[in-house]
Amino acid sequence: MEAKFNELKTRLAEIHDLNKIGWILGWDQRTMMAPKGARVRAEQLASLGRVAHDKFTAPEIGRLLDQLQPHAESLPYDSDEASLIRVARRDWDKARRVPGELRAELSRSASLANAAWIEARKQADFQRFLPHLQKNVQLRRRYIECFDQTEDLYDVLLDDYEPGLPTAEVRRVFGELKRELLPLIAAVTRSGREIDDGCLHGHFPIDQQRAFVLSVVGRFGFQTDSWRLDPTVHPFASNSCTTDIRITTRYAEGFLSPALFGTLHETGHGLYENGVSPNLERTPLCRGASLGLHESQSRMWENLVGRSRPFWRFFFPRLKAAFPAQMAGMDAEGVYAAVNKVQPSLIRVEADEATYNLHIILRFELEQALMSGDLALAELPEAWNARMQDYLGLDVPDDGLGVLQDIHWSGGMIGYFPTYALGNIISCQIWEKAQAALPGLEAQFEQGEFVPLREWLRDNLHQHGRKFTPAETLERVAGTPRIEVGPYVRYLYAKFQDLYALPDLRQPVTA
Amino acid sequence: MEAKFNELKTRLAEIHDLNKIGWILGWDQRTMMAPKGARVRAEQLASLGRVAHDKFTAPEIGRLLDQLQPHAESLPYDSDEASLIRVARRDWDKARRVPGELRAELSRSASLANAAWIEARKQADFQRFLPHLQKNVQLRRRYIECFDQTEDLYDVLLDDYEPGLPTAEVRRVFGELKRELLPLIAAVTRSGREIDDGCLHGHFPIDQQRAFVLSVVGRFGFQTDSWRLDPTVHPFASNSCTTDIRITTRYAEGFLSPALFGTLHETGHGLYENGVSPNLERTPLCRGASLGLHESQSRMWENLVGRSRPFWRFFFPRLKAAFPAQMAGMDAEGVYAAVNKVQPSLIRVEADEATYNLHIILRFELEQALMSGDLALAELPEAWNARMQDYLGLDVPDDGLGVLQDIHWSGGMIGYFPTYALGNIISCQIWEKAQAALPGLEAQFEQGEFVPLREWLRDNLHQHGRKFTPAETLERVAGTPRIEVGPYVRYLYAKFQDLYALPDLRQPVTA
Repeated sequence: MEAKFNELKTRLAEIHDLNKIGWILGWDQRTMMAPKGARVRAEQLASLGRVAHDKFTAPEIGRLLDQLQPHAESLPYDSDEASLIRVARRDWDKARRVPGELRAELSRSASLANAAWIEARKQADFQRFLPHLQKNVQLRRRYIECFDQTEDLYDVLLDDYEPGLPTAEVRRVFGELKRELLPLIAAVTRSGREIDDGCLHGHFPIDQQRAFVLSVVGRFGFQTDSWRLDPTVHPFASNSCTTDIRITTRYAEGFLSPALFGTLHETGHGLYENGVSPNLERTPLCRGASLGLHESQSRMWENLVGRSRPFWRFFFPRLKAAFPAQMAGMDAEGVYAAVNKVQPSLIRVEADEATYNLHIILRFELEQALMSGDLALAELPEAWNARMQDYLGLDVPDDGLGVLQDIHWSGGMIGYFPTYALGNIISCQIWEKAQAALPGLEAQFEQGEFVPLREWLRDNLHQHGRKFTPAETLERVAGTPRIEVGPYVRYLYAKFQDLYALPDLRQPVTA
Repeated sequence: MEAKFNELKTRLAEIHDLNKIGWILGWDQRTMMAPKGARVRAEQLASLGRVAHDKFTAPEIGRLLDQLQPHAESLPYDSDEASLIRVARRDWDKARRVPGELRAELSRSASLANAAWIEARKQADFQRFLPHLQKNVQLRRRYIECFDQTEDLYDVLLDDYEPGLPTAEVRRVFGELKRELLPLIAAVTRSGREIDDGCLHGHFPIDQQRAFVLSVVGRFGFQTDSWRLDPTVHPFASNSCTTDIRITTRYAEGFLSPALFGTLHETGHGLYENGVSPNLERTPLCRGASLGLHESQSRMWENLVGRSRPFWRFFFPRLKAAFPAQMAGMDAEGVYAAVNKVQPSLIRVEADEATYNLHIILRFELEQALMSGDLALAELPEAWNARMQDYLGLDVPDDGLGVLQDIHWSGGMIGYFPTYALGNIISCQIWEKAQAALPGLEAQFEQGEFVPLREWLRDNLHQHGRKFTPAETLERVAGTPRIEVGPYVRYLYAKFQDLYALPDLRQPVTA
């Protein structure tokens, strides 16, 4: 058995190496590569992906997994060995179901659709993108057919990003969330209070922005012996292993927020990967358990930490030292208010904490309608615009600022969006547990001390990597396998009732 | 036949993709990777190399090559198709001979020896390195035994870097070169003339150095849409494909030469890879034909161009504009003399054009003696020091500045050194042809015009990639398959007789 387990582990390590190499090539492509390297890089990534996929779906892996099944059952459920066999079995069963030919077509169609989308968005011309979207949706239907029938067609898509979570459950969660958010946003709008966020706009030289954000994330856990921060167009986090974390950000010389909060966000992703147990290195367990859990970490460091009052009590004097002219006459409270300004807006990635989730709910609803056929693809722009009016009271001037704004659908990534809002919700479930476990957490932030939070997250979440399902993982860190909106709604109400002096809001119904 | 050829080409393209991915990982490791990424990166490179090697040495490739043999013979010798089959056959035959177990041991031993060498060099302690060198030499003997017997043991090693060139031929070439160089260096030393190279030392801020060297290589062919220049510790050139060239350099704030001439050198390597025909992209033909030919290109742009009088006539005013204080009172002729100062010195990589080759000849002689057993490994330091005294009149104060200075032997790379001096020699064979083909070449340099030279090199050398053997390639560009020292010796005599006002040197004997 030990020999068989070692053989499995060796094979999975090699495949994991190839997959991680793909991550670094992707990082390189988006941070370092000269533009003319793109064509051959696409081929290199395709070759690498094909080789890794072929090696993983080989029948020998299935045979080893079969033979090791009794062994896995004889071991403790949470042992690294049992977890490796269990997770590899699940991955293998999924990977085997999709024929190589469909996989290749999905990837080809995504490339073509992506190029068309770039052009279509530039010209705000949905018609130009429509045939590609049709093709992507049609291929996704064929993808769904590779799997056993589920309650919702959408379940199969969602499972790729948030394994094991049924669509019905997301519908329940988002239903509750929408019910709570709409009155809150309406109350903020009605309050008539205009927060002045002028201090975030001005002239912030990029070198100084970089130095400042590094001084912040250095206190979170960014260390130069195992992390990098590089500029890019669409920021992301990647890594080669737990001790080689690559985060990226985008600098706007006239606006402090993108680089600052973007870096805090990506640092949250990086801390998750950095915190996975070294024992899981070079195994398929060596990454976060799901996109929702991952996003819970990025949003926690960006929002629950980075947009908190104690954070700004500590960092405001440092921000002022870095940008004395721009921060003249400001105080910690003023910056705290500025970074929390609520303002319904057209673009998801620029949305504030309160309205962000409605952008996601809108996409989740439209995606389900598209997959089920309830909504014809040609009618997508009108449906989008109607919901923007309903949820945020905004007119969409053109499709470039509307239905064409996101890259995801061009890449065939349908089912991905919900994980962003799920991450927000989960972040507060975890946050309440951390606050209970670590008394004086906010007082520590005021002293610039973030290590206890990071260590607690590592012990209770990060270290497990992908050993457990997302629900099991959530239960370990938050005490329940269920995604619950209560903590998140409480957090938003508390923050914005205070900031917008909203006296007349009844307490939210969710307990 | 066409189907079989396409299958071969597809398989080789995938393997080539994996190999090029390894190049980019190596580049990343030496320019971008945080130190703690090293351990897992080594595993990733090993996995990638193993997968690529297994795919290439698969019997299916051999069968395809067998089946395509008659097809290749029916095509013109210099067609891309015939060349691909011919070169792949040669590579496959070589790759199949070395058992995976020996390959793994070579790589493991190199890793251990490299770590030991770093420590040994730091402490100038040869004894600490000796057992590792013994192991490396012993493994190289086993490697040699995998191949048919050749006249010299060393032939097999040399063939990995300079395919098809017999050791006896290198011995002949280096013998002639040594005979010519020793009296030249002696005459320079006797002349008593001391060139003042003070203008190269001073304070040169790194950002300004970078801007200046980029302005130079921009005229050679460095373009930002397909090249990068990054700092590193031991400079090198790499690439992902012909349109994604990565060169590196090392900046010394107090000394202009390392970054300037280092960048010109790596640009030469980059131009070779950048100039390979796009038709050869994603094939094993898509790189330079040998290390010697590669080095001919780096040394040409570094020395024949970058250390020439017309180059400095054009660039001196620009250098002065970039560094007005440091260049005050200097003129083009003064900088030209400074960058050509001859000074026997201990360290190969810092040697001038005249003495550099003696460092190589010394290593070539010692390597042969080690492999044949004529020299015991324990006696290597004495043998090194005796030759440094003979050839350059220098006492070696310790082994860190002597036998331990180079990384190559720690990596088991025996047979590599000769290609450096062969590159110098070949560069002048090509140079004489270029001068004959392009009248007014030097006048163009004075105008900052380097495109005609680059284009001529592309047409006559670069575009062929690895289609032909090094000898065939040399014949195409220089009119003879033989490496001839005549042009190089003429070049060195002309330059240094002029610079050092050496009146009494008889003309070199080689015609």
